[in-house]
Amino acid sequence: MTTRSSAEALFAGNRATLAGYEAQHFGWSVQGRVATITLNRPERKNPLTFESYAELRDLFRQLACATDVKAVVLHGAGENFCSGGDVHDIIAPLVDLPMPELLMFTRMTGDLVKAMRHCPQPIIAAVDGVCAGAGAILAMASDMRYATARSKLAFLFTRVGLAGCDMGACAILPRIIGQGRAAELLYTGRSASGDEGHAWGFYNRICEPDVLLADAQKLAADLACGPTFAHGITKTMLHQEWTMSIDEAIESEAQAQAICMATRDFGRAYEAFAAKTRPVFEGD
Amino acid sequence: MTTRSSAEALFAGNRATLAGYEAQHFGWSVQGRVATITLNRPERKNPLTFESYAELRDLFRQLACATDVKAVVLHGAGENFCSGGDVHDIIAPLVDLPMPELLMFTRMTGDLVKAMRHCPQPIIAAVDGVCAGAGAILAMASDMRYATARSKLAFLFTRVGLAGCDMGACAILPRIIGQGRAAELLYTGRSASGDEGHAWGFYNRICEPDVLLADAQKLAADLACGPTFAHGITKTMLHQEWTMSIDEAIESEAQAQAICMATRDFGRAYEAFAAKTRPVFEGD
Amino acid sequence: MTTRSSAEALFAGNRATLAGYEAQHFGWSVQGRVATITLNRPERKNPLTFESYAELRDLFRQLACATDVKAVVLHGAGENFCSGGDVHDIIAPLVDLPMPELLMFTRMTGDLVKAMRHCPQPIIAAVDGVCAGAGAILAMASDMRYATARSKLAFLFTRVGLAGCDMGACAILPRIIGQGRAAELLYTGRSASGDEGHAWGFYNRICEPDVLLADAQKLAADLACGPTFAHGITKTMLHQEWTMSIDEAIESEAQAQAICMATRDFGRAYEAFAAKTRPVFEGD
Repeated sequence: MTTRSSAEALFAGNRATLAGYEAQHFGWSVQGRVATITLNRPERKNPLTFESYAELRDLFRQLACATDVKAVVLHGAGENFCSGGDVHDIIAPLVDLPMPELLMFTRMTGDLVKAMRHCPQPIIAAVDGVCAGAGAILAMASDMRYATARSKLAFLFTRVGLAGCDMGACAILPRIIGQGRAAELLYTGRSASGDEGHAWGFYNRICEPDVLLADAQKLAADLACGPTFAHGITKTMLHQEWTMSIDEAIESEAQAQAICMATRDFGRAYEAFAAKTRPVFEGD
Repeated sequence: MTTRSSAEALFAGNRATLAGYEAQHFGWSVQGRVATITLNRPERKNPLTFESYAELRDLFRQLACATDVKAVVLHGAGENFCSGGDVHDIIAPLVDLPMPELLMFTRMTGDLVKAMRHCPQPIIAAVDGVCAGAGAILAMASDMRYATARSKLAFLFTRVGLAGCDMGACAILPRIIGQGRAAELLYTGRSASGDEGHAWGFYNRICEPDVLLADAQKLAADLACGPTFAHGITKTMLHQEWTMSIDEAIESEAQAQAICMATRDFGRAYEAFAAKTRPVFEGD
Repeated sequence: MTTRSSAEALFAGNRATLAGYEAQHFGWSVQGRVATITLNRPERKNPLTFESYAELRDLFRQLACATDVKAVVLHGAGENFCSGGDVHDIIAPLVDLPMPELLMFTRMTGDLVKAMRHCPQPIIAAVDGVCAGAGAILAMASDMRYATARSKLAFLFTRVGLAGCDMGACAILPRIIGQGRAAELLYTGRSASGDEGHAWGFYNRICEPDVLLADAQKLAADLACGPTFAHGITKTMLHQEWTMSIDEAIESEAQAQAICMATRDFGRAYEAFAAKTRPVFEGD
């Protein structure tokens, strides 16, 4: 234990607690080890602003070090998820920006997706109502998605004169729903219903509106009670193997899974099995 | 404008008009900014020949510079799409060719797919009846696909003693319909119905036969009225990000979308929104 | 023929017959040119052991040289496919192994998947009942999958405290069923029904339990009567093109298909067509 405490300097720089985080531009609450982010400007269908983009990016970066949050739920207040970049607060100023500042903006939005993919916590989007533009991207960039039948998913960049390639959509969306369906959504900007999104594998479950958030939080709580270190490795490898060959992926997984076999949670699972009880995972 | 006109030499080498193009081996017509290619040997279900392959390849290469065509519809005359390489005109001579000429042929057919993926126009296949062999590849290599319930899709290379790896099928088909379904179609050569193809995400819509072509042309016309420069960027990025990591794709999209934010179409969309009118995009 | 016989030394080192192979840790039978592997510890739902892993790996490696086996069916005795790594025989000892030996184990299991993907024979999994953990991986690593409605597919590594990245799952599963569905199965370990697996493209067909094995063997027999050299090229290219760009894939396929056009099976198909008979392929 002496050697362990000598490593405290390492731990200190890589550990943070976020239960007490006070969000400025959206709602943030932590129950148990599940954090819920609420996009909360319901009167405008929860649009994003420069400020909320930046704060979300910074928060997901901090989640990489969080010891008290093991899963994240992302949803919108009222009966909508998110209407995307605010027309007045974002699109209007963008029209006149010089190129370096345009790129500063598109990189910031892309950095939000990168931060969502790089933190170890599984992210579950709970999608009701409008899920459009950058809102659709936030759902896409989550690990899993629950939605309502009445939800409307639209990658509507084309409607504002832009390309479908926003925040990784041309890379990520085809891997979720297939190249042909992704092409249609990105070229046309049309809305997809909850049932379509479910049939296509975009949504993992269709819920009634009144239980959507609770169902997503239940899934998050189940994951947060699981082997959370291993979940983080699952997330890392889903990201890491994106462009590996099959043989490379198999070697990488041999290494990654060997790491997990050296965790105490693996032993806990076996001991619980032998004792005919349920394992209590602790994430180490 | 003086500086602009000094760039005319650049423009001259990169602009062409194709409305007046006179096709030799298939039908070609342009309405508005939508071109329709008609494979038109209906008595043999519109097979491809050495000549039609070469002309299609050259035409799609020219489309890269076309200023008057903004979307392309590809369909077959009569009630079939395309029966693939003609048994008499193509397969018979291939059986006796020396290796360098076999490779010349397989490269030519592959170059057609490359040209279809490299031109900026979205290509919409309208698939009725037989869609087999190289015909199935042409549908697969399009951006979107409408079909009839009675259509029959078959990657039947195996039936003529060949492998499923033709013109990119082992790379592209799995990304559209999934690895397991693609393996079955490529190993067995079996036909897939319109409903199967739709459920799998190969077809974007099932249409009645009598409106199939009109529906496909309507989609093409809608796209041709959109921000066509941005559509071309969407197509480029869907191609370009095929093997990028997620992080690389996000940086590439940050750059590509910043380019689109510097176009006039982006400003037009915002002005139309502010004026509560519909934007009129001009593709610049 | 003199020159041909001088190459016999080459052939000798690359040819093996497996009809007479005597399996130690599972069932093995060859009918015609179809081999059937039967995981056969039905009283424990056909779990894998260190010994059966190693023997399966070695057998699939030998299949790379087999001249008498052209397709493989993989199934389980009784009414289950495979329950994965045996808790007593595998998990218990793993809990205490030092890291180099853990890696030896995860590499061995990964090498089994590599061997399945590197042999030229199409592998058809016939999945009834439990298909869990490493069993789910064996199904995933096959080329095609038939199943029963009552089958239960579960990537349950998370239930034993491990990550979803086992034997290539984070790379391969998303390409079969999409990134969102794969994430759910890998994070949660939940069971998927036969109907779900079929709708997602994991299973190619749902069969009645009493004909499942026969249907899978029928598909295998059909493939074994086809152009088997070309089938091997299809399998190679599905593997090889996993991370190629579209343009690279097209050039690779131009070369691979040109090879197939130089085979006798290609000529046989044309001659049969001209003679209005069915081709008899011989795999050369």
